[in-house]
Amino acid sequence: MIRDFKSLIGDLKSVVGEQWIVTEERAVERYLYDETAFGVRPEPVRDVVVVKPGSTEEVSEVLKIANKYKVSVHVRGGGTGLVGGAIPTKPGIVLSLERMDKVTIDVDNMVAEVEAGATLGKLIEEAEKHNLMFPAHPGDEGATVGGLVACNAGGSRAVKTGVVRNYVLGLEIVLPNGDILRLGGKTIKNNMGYNLAHLFIGSEGVLGVITKAYIRLYPKWRYTATIVVPFNSRVDAFRAAKKILFEGLTPLALEYFDRKVIETSANYLGTTWPVKEGEYYLMIILAEALEDVLYVEMEHIDNIVRSEGALEPFVTQRDDEQKSLLKIRSEIFSALKEETFDILDTTVPIGVVDRFIENVIDIEKRYGVWLPVYGHVGDGNVHVHVMKHKGFSKEQLEKIAEDVYDVALLLGGTITGEHGIGYIRRKYVKKVLGDAWIETVKKLKSVLDPNNILNPDKVLPGD
Amino acid sequence: MIRDFKSLIGDLKSVVGEQWIVTEERAVERYLYDETAFGVRPEPVRDVVVVKPGSTEEVSEVLKIANKYKVSVHVRGGGTGLVGGAIPTKPGIVLSLERMDKVTIDVDNMVAEVEAGATLGKLIEEAEKHNLMFPAHPGDEGATVGGLVACNAGGSRAVKTGVVRNYVLGLEIVLPNGDILRLGGKTIKNNMGYNLAHLFIGSEGVLGVITKAYIRLYPKWRYTATIVVPFNSRVDAFRAAKKILFEGLTPLALEYFDRKVIETSANYLGTTWPVKEGEYYLMIILAEALEDVLYVEMEHIDNIVRSEGALEPFVTQRDDEQKSLLKIRSEIFSALKEETFDILDTTVPIGVVDRFIENVIDIEKRYGVWLPVYGHVGDGNVHVHVMKHKGFSKEQLEKIAEDVYDVALLLGGTITGEHGIGYIRRKYVKKVLGDAWIETVKKLKSVLDPNNILNPDKVLPGD
Repeated sequence: MIRDFKSLIGDLKSVVGEQWIVTEERAVERYLYDETAFGVRPEPVRDVVVVKPGSTEEVSEVLKIANKYKVSVHVRGGGTGLVGGAIPTKPGIVLSLERMDKVTIDVDNMVAEVEAGATLGKLIEEAEKHNLMFPAHPGDEGATVGGLVACNAGGSRAVKTGVVRNYVLGLEIVLPNGDILRLGGKTIKNNMGYNLAHLFIGSEGVLGVITKAYIRLYPKWRYTATIVVPFNSRVDAFRAAKKILFEGLTPLALEYFDRKVIETSANYLGTTWPVKEGEYYLMIILAEALEDVLYVEMEHIDNIVRSEGALEPFVTQRDDEQKSLLKIRSEIFSALKEETFDILDTTVPIGVVDRFIENVIDIEKRYGVWLPVYGHVGDGNVHVHVMKHKGFSKEQLEKIAEDVYDVALLLGGTITGEHGIGYIRRKYVKKVLGDAWIETVKKLKSVLDPNNILNPDKVLPGD
Repeated sequence: MIRDFKSLIGDLKSVVGEQWIVTEERAVERYLYDETAFGVRPEPVRDVVVVKPGSTEEVSEVLKIANKYKVSVHVRGGGTGLVGGAIPTKPGIVLSLERMDKVTIDVDNMVAEVEAGATLGKLIEEAEKHNLMFPAHPGDEGATVGGLVACNAGGSRAVKTGVVRNYVLGLEIVLPNGDILRLGGKTIKNNMGYNLAHLFIGSEGVLGVITKAYIRLYPKWRYTATIVVPFNSRVDAFRAAKKILFEGLTPLALEYFDRKVIETSANYLGTTWPVKEGEYYLMIILAEALEDVLYVEMEHIDNIVRSEGALEPFVTQRDDEQKSLLKIRSEIFSALKEETFDILDTTVPIGVVDRFIENVIDIEKRYGVWLPVYGHVGDGNVHVHVMKHKGFSKEQLEKIAEDVYDVALLLGGTITGEHGIGYIRRKYVKKVLGDAWIETVKKLKSVLDPNNILNPDKVLPGD
């Protein structure tokens, strides 16, 4: 229990106003979870007050109050994270940025000035109004921009223009002590002050609260196509994927999945996977400014995949069909979630994705379980679901995850390419990052957040 | 003078061996300067010993010794910086990484594992042997990879694939206390431990010594063209440049310069600028994996520039001609250097480059001086040379620079897009970055480098 709870609430009310404080148990409930798979999701504490500031200055005041009372602050965006990063696991404040959701598009400079609580969906929509686009698509459009930046989100469409880090031109950050830091702005290049913003991008909210971001936009690439390439052989599929990348083509997305996985998602959505042939698929999304460039690329890719043993590719330039295919791909996670123990976010160098997946299949056979594998073969980020299995204990399922991690690490990969560490991956930090990393981050954390108020039990392994 | 100098030298010798220590005055001389313009270049101290470690472990030992004696360590790469970052301005150690110059190309994963002292030229050459490329070209090929990363270098070819930060997949860093930190690796995506590497990229060597980098390579784009587009009107040139960007085309480079500037460089090189027409030029470099894509883009760009008033474009696909054009462009700085007081590195949002340059021309007229302007119009990074002018004092020339900076800042820009702060830009830190930035960076610096040994009087403003 928080001591002086009443006094704390009083102080918070004086900053944000009574209507933006939530303490009623049922109302608090929806601020306690994120999308972490049930098997590994931590139990939230309920001893929290939800605070909804309306401005950067209010965020600053809330953090000062948290320091005064030495209570934890759990920063909350859209709650779409997969590693428990937004789940309050210590009593204190849930700082929800939902009210700060303004999006301003600077058309002439192709930059969006976005408050942290604006959703990905809103950013996409506002940009499109001006014929601009935010190409990345890290899954759930309910994610907030603050969350995307704090977690350096990725997603399937990161092959051409990269992960969220690449889009961030500037940040406004409230430091744990309440100081407001403004870094970068609307310029594409900026070497003034070693763009300290990059310390906060991907830091999962443990070093500061992101309140605003300047996001680089691109002109809407008007000509797009989605190509689903079926294969009877997984080996052929990967050889084709590698050839596409090694010839220097840069699709927006280059995805891999198999029939069982994609049909599970289609069924979940009450629709049908439209490609009848094949057991293994590459899904390639092309987006270009010039129609003729699109055609040249489509033809070239067609040649490559056929030479590597593809069956008849399914090609569409129709918007509705492309959206429907992307939707089926994007909902794989949701479709599997109910039966998922944990979704892994393993990433390996692009040249060894095939070897990685072969190894995962060996593990699958060894344990006699189903390990759905799919993901962003274009950047080596392969998701492996560890599914619940009758008679398997939590420990046994964790052992399977660890075996998969060991393979990724052995191949020069890492255990998270886009989801982050959050709460549930902290136990692997020592093994993957080592003592020097832990010591360095502890130093940074202690000097920026001496009272350890901000997301206190996230990222760093516990003592 | 350093106290216990003899004892310090003895300790250093025991780590790197006697032959890798330089104390003789004339031999030390070539470690005292970088490429900073003469007008603003700081005077180096001569009370330094040059140490050339052969391994990361030796770097670590040298830093431990520096802490023991509490002497400064000035990290040195290729000495091609433009802001005095490599000039020793306090007595101590010049740590030259020249011996650590190994480049290993991992062809299958398209990654170069590069020791910090390897030059850009060597990296380019080694990558090309394997039909791969490092697309960025931050000017002088004598720069070292450690320097490129520490300074987050840019250059003309950063429009398509970005500045050096975008290529860094992993780093090996020796912290000021001698601890060795290994961050990231060969995966394109990596969210394990908020890729702390990005704190060090662009930090200009004040937080740690970069000893190795994992650099992302790309397949060599086989089809390239350089197009020089002449205009009689500057306004037309900028309108055309903007239209190219706003239609979603991504050339490798999109440069602007005028006849006087480019002919100065051609003369300096003893050659001739081959384009007879026009007073203002865009230079566009295209690089594509597919020949037909290149042609489609060339045709489209041709249409755009002609519709905006271009004269006859000069187009070449010949390697030697393209290299010669790039050489003339790249040597503008060297050609002007003798008469340059300072080269500015102003950067503005891409939509206001034209307004920025108009303002610079106003300043030029107001003072009656020549302010050569050229640069990377594709990412808003415009270099302005403040030339020496008969009868103008240092203070007057500095005032001109400040007027240019004020315009950039007013337009939402910044005073350095790629060169960094180093020694000579520290006086603008407070104005541009503010007190919260200074306080934050001081905290980070003090916790990582409590004895302030590493590049001690760089980046942060003096007290």
